[in-house]
Amino acid sequence: MTERIDHTLRGSWTPSGAADAALPPHALRWLRDRTGLAAASTPAGPDSVIAVGDSTLPDAARAALAALVGESNVLLDRDSRLGRAGGLSYVDLMRHRGAGELAVPDAVVLPADPDQVVEVLRACAAQDIGVVPFGGGTSVVGGVSALRGDKVAVVALDLARLDALVSVDPVSRIAVLQAGVRGPDAERLLAAHGLTIGHVPQSFERATIGGFAATRSAGQASAGYGRFEDMVEGLRLATPVGEWRLGSAPASAAGPDLRQLVVGSEGAFGVITEVALRVRPTPTERRYEGYVLDGWEAGGEAVRDLAQQRVLADITRLSDVDETEVSLALSGGWKSTALRGYLRARGIARPCLLILGWEAASPAEAAVRRAATLRVLGEHRTVRLGRPLGEAWLHGRFNGPRQRDALLDAGVCVETLETATHWSRLDELRDAVRAALVDALRTPQHRPVVMCHVSHAYETGASLYFTVLVPRSEQDPIGQWQQAKAAACAAISRIGTGEPPLGTISHHHAVGTDHAPYLAAEIGELGVDVLGSVKRTLDPSGILNPGKLLGQELLTR
Amino acid sequence: MTERIDHTLRGSWTPSGAADAALPPHALRWLRDRTGLAAASTPAGPDSVIAVGDSTLPDAARAALAALVGESNVLLDRDSRLGRAGGLSYVDLMRHRGAGELAVPDAVVLPADPDQVVEVLRACAAQDIGVVPFGGGTSVVGGVSALRGDKVAVVALDLARLDALVSVDPVSRIAVLQAGVRGPDAERLLAAHGLTIGHVPQSFERATIGGFAATRSAGQASAGYGRFEDMVEGLRLATPVGEWRLGSAPASAAGPDLRQLVVGSEGAFGVITEVALRVRPTPTERRYEGYVLDGWEAGGEAVRDLAQQRVLADITRLSDVDETEVSLALSGGWKSTALRGYLRARGIARPCLLILGWEAASPAEAAVRRAATLRVLGEHRTVRLGRPLGEAWLHGRFNGPRQRDALLDAGVCVETLETATHWSRLDELRDAVRAALVDALRTPQHRPVVMCHVSHAYETGASLYFTVLVPRSEQDPIGQWQQAKAAACAAISRIGTGEPPLGTISHHHAVGTDHAPYLAAEIGELGVDVLGSVKRTLDPSGILNPGKLLGQELLTR
Repeated sequence: MTERIDHTLRGSWTPSGAADAALPPHALRWLRDRTGLAAASTPAGPDSVIAVGDSTLPDAARAALAALVGESNVLLDRDSRLGRAGGLSYVDLMRHRGAGELAVPDAVVLPADPDQVVEVLRACAAQDIGVVPFGGGTSVVGGVSALRGDKVAVVALDLARLDALVSVDPVSRIAVLQAGVRGPDAERLLAAHGLTIGHVPQSFERATIGGFAATRSAGQASAGYGRFEDMVEGLRLATPVGEWRLGSAPASAAGPDLRQLVVGSEGAFGVITEVALRVRPTPTERRYEGYVLDGWEAGGEAVRDLAQQRVLADITRLSDVDETEVSLALSGGWKSTALRGYLRARGIARPCLLILGWEAASPAEAAVRRAATLRVLGEHRTVRLGRPLGEAWLHGRFNGPRQRDALLDAGVCVETLETATHWSRLDELRDAVRAALVDALRTPQHRPVVMCHVSHAYETGASLYFTVLVPRSEQDPIGQWQQAKAAACAAISRIGTGEPPLGTISHHHAVGTDHAPYLAAEIGELGVDVLGSVKRTLDPSGILNPGKLLGQELLTR
Repeated sequence: MTERIDHTLRGSWTPSGAADAALPPHALRWLRDRTGLAAASTPAGPDSVIAVGDSTLPDAARAALAALVGESNVLLDRDSRLGRAGGLSYVDLMRHRGAGELAVPDAVVLPADPDQVVEVLRACAAQDIGVVPFGGGTSVVGGVSALRGDKVAVVALDLARLDALVSVDPVSRIAVLQAGVRGPDAERLLAAHGLTIGHVPQSFERATIGGFAATRSAGQASAGYGRFEDMVEGLRLATPVGEWRLGSAPASAAGPDLRQLVVGSEGAFGVITEVALRVRPTPTERRYEGYVLDGWEAGGEAVRDLAQQRVLADITRLSDVDETEVSLALSGGWKSTALRGYLRARGIARPCLLILGWEAASPAEAAVRRAATLRVLGEHRTVRLGRPLGEAWLHGRFNGPRQRDALLDAGVCVETLETATHWSRLDELRDAVRAALVDALRTPQHRPVVMCHVSHAYETGASLYFTVLVPRSEQDPIGQWQQAKAAACAAISRIGTGEPPLGTISHHHAVGTDHAPYLAAEIGELGVDVLGSVKRTLDPSGILNPGKLLGQELLTR
């Protein structure tokens, strides 16, 4: 079987459109009051103002690629190239608005299938052309920047045509999907079989199966469905030296788990072309609820207890006081006032919102699992806010990426970053990152909003996800953020201090270019050497995703 | 903190001694009837009959090692060397009985701590001495054979002195243990903190923390506690080029998961010296029960349903008809007759025993989890046999390794092998391996017993564990098994057929020497190349565990 999505159909996963992308007036008012944001509007200019150099792709290379994938699948026009120039980080978005220099690929190549991907890589290796694998283009860490490295040219290898559901094994509950299938399309294709992946990160609407695997993505329901790497049963990886297939059993002791070396390899070792995924029946029961705890420490204790007693709801998201405050402020006038009063009356001085969600294949399963969660949660002081708050979270689950353009138009510097650590260091890590961000971004005129939540909890620790909003610097909007990000990364990795890192430099955004300088602090110089040796084995001429994961200087070690 | 076990104390995990190591008379009678075993006894001779060559360790190397670890920790005597010559496979045991040639290390080196391990490796690299890391010595795949490779000598690096609990983080539920701590000692050390690892493979009584990690071990309660690799939060690996530390968060997207490259590296990349493990509270409730289903297919369906509905008992073990038949036969005369009659009366024609066990921190948790399992099991036709059968399994859980000497004394060839695959191929794989073993071992005089069970189930598949009993060939007791094992491995890996493997060549025994010829069929030539490149980076002179994991010929690629 090979099933492809009919893109004219629309299902439940369809983005809900422009309404969610706009910023409500009261949100803008709140931002101005809270941060000192000026009333000026700074809309993006037309794409035509962006400087795009001529393609440096040699004619011989173009001809070789066209011979493999067809003339119409080697795109050299300005719009196609600009459309694959970078991802969705604040810095990338600002570059598309004319700030800083944009790395634009010299061509876009669209192979038809996994075999063509291998051939394209061989051809690029022969012609010494860099290759940036491009799926949904949602990287927020520079993972798809079209860096040329030491190559004569760099192409974006767009996987859009690898958009098929290849096979379904309903007995083993395994589905094989091609790398270019986007989140909503994967769910639509599988829904026809009564199955779901259950992987819904905030990038879901645009990101692809291959990208999820390449970056060790974690979805909003990771507590229930696992991180993406937990779902990967097998892989096909196209490399310049041939195809590599992995995965013959759910678990194995036949040496190291090489699947876990490919998952997270960020296009630096090869191009993931197919992923065999563990799937589950489409849930028939979905229930999302809001709770409030008093303070970050109490909230963290409750989530830790749920994780360690192994009764986490499938979706478990704890906001800190700042993020809860913003949620309340943005939920609008009287609702927010009423809620504040209600919580105060119940002795909640520092409200922290906890969203819990259960997705189950039967009412009985839903009831049993919810009861198990609530039995443990009942040992902690909580105020139940019920389903409306849970549904509100569900409705707004993709608003972060959707509203970024509106925030940029309003003159805001908006970005996120994330980390994870063990429970005993979680508060220390949060305080350190928060302080680094606030210190870096505060000016006499501007007061940054730094909010944080836990959205992925484990028995031994949890993730921390920070969202930052601050009026944008007119002089240096990119440097403004890069300095804050560097301060946050230094707080996480404690680079140069001789101390081991306080946490990981990335829990689910990956390394890309932005985290590459901090990788050695986390995995050691030996770890970097090991990754380098693997890269040289699979990509001897170093054409794959130059500068990502291992950083630029390591390609030539 | 550093806590060491007081070896004069004995706790609940202590081996119960000689009684369990003997073979009951009725079992021997049954074996003779069933397999054609002769009545002759073939006890092991004294160790003194084994040919042990002189140590080839150069004086300079001996002196260098003694300078690092002390004279008394470099052992050259015959008994010490013989005591680290090979593991516990049937072939290794037969070699210790004088059949075939035994690879004996030229010395035994006992470093005191992780730093000394690094120094020993550097010294061995400088002197071109092979190093076989030695923990409990329980490998059944040749993993600790003292192969010399192309080195002038080979030493067993015994980790017995690395026997400390290094630290406990009760908030994050992480314990750091040195690699040489044996299973029972680890549990005793942690019990003082109210904690458990919950990792109890059949090798538990002798095997070590480092060995569990190096081989991707899976314990009998893997459904509840996870495989050993699921518990590994961090590692210290000593290599000839320095120490490598990994693990700063419960999960990370900072590139590939390199912990999963070290776990399963079988001493070929380095020597694991410390492991940070996720631990849990010591269970207060333990309940083990026996159930019977009618036939392998029905049993497999039930276990699959439990796994896919995520309500597996912590211990879930399904025996096939043959293994159940043997269990009944060995449980003795009237009990077995009565049970057979009881099952027949309930319409069970082909009984398959299902052992379920729950271990929980509170009665409430135990009740909730058991109810969830039994709700799903209730949708399958089962006969409940109650706790006595569950307790009988618990009592006999280590009898396999304990009784091997008695079986060898009785003239039996006894060995196990294991694999795993996805549910849709499980029956095909079982039939293929079973047929290969029976065909290889059947003679006009001898009828092999080949039994099988599932003891590790996943949403997408399960393991298969085979136990083989057959009268031993007098002429060629080692060749007899090696031919059968080769046939089984060929059935699993389909090597040379152009077909992908039917399953993994090892679910939890590892690769060692025995599975090395089948590794490329499973992970591809590129996989072998990748492992080779990692090995050359960490062990440039190829001193580490020669011939294991990658096989002999790959050391010089």
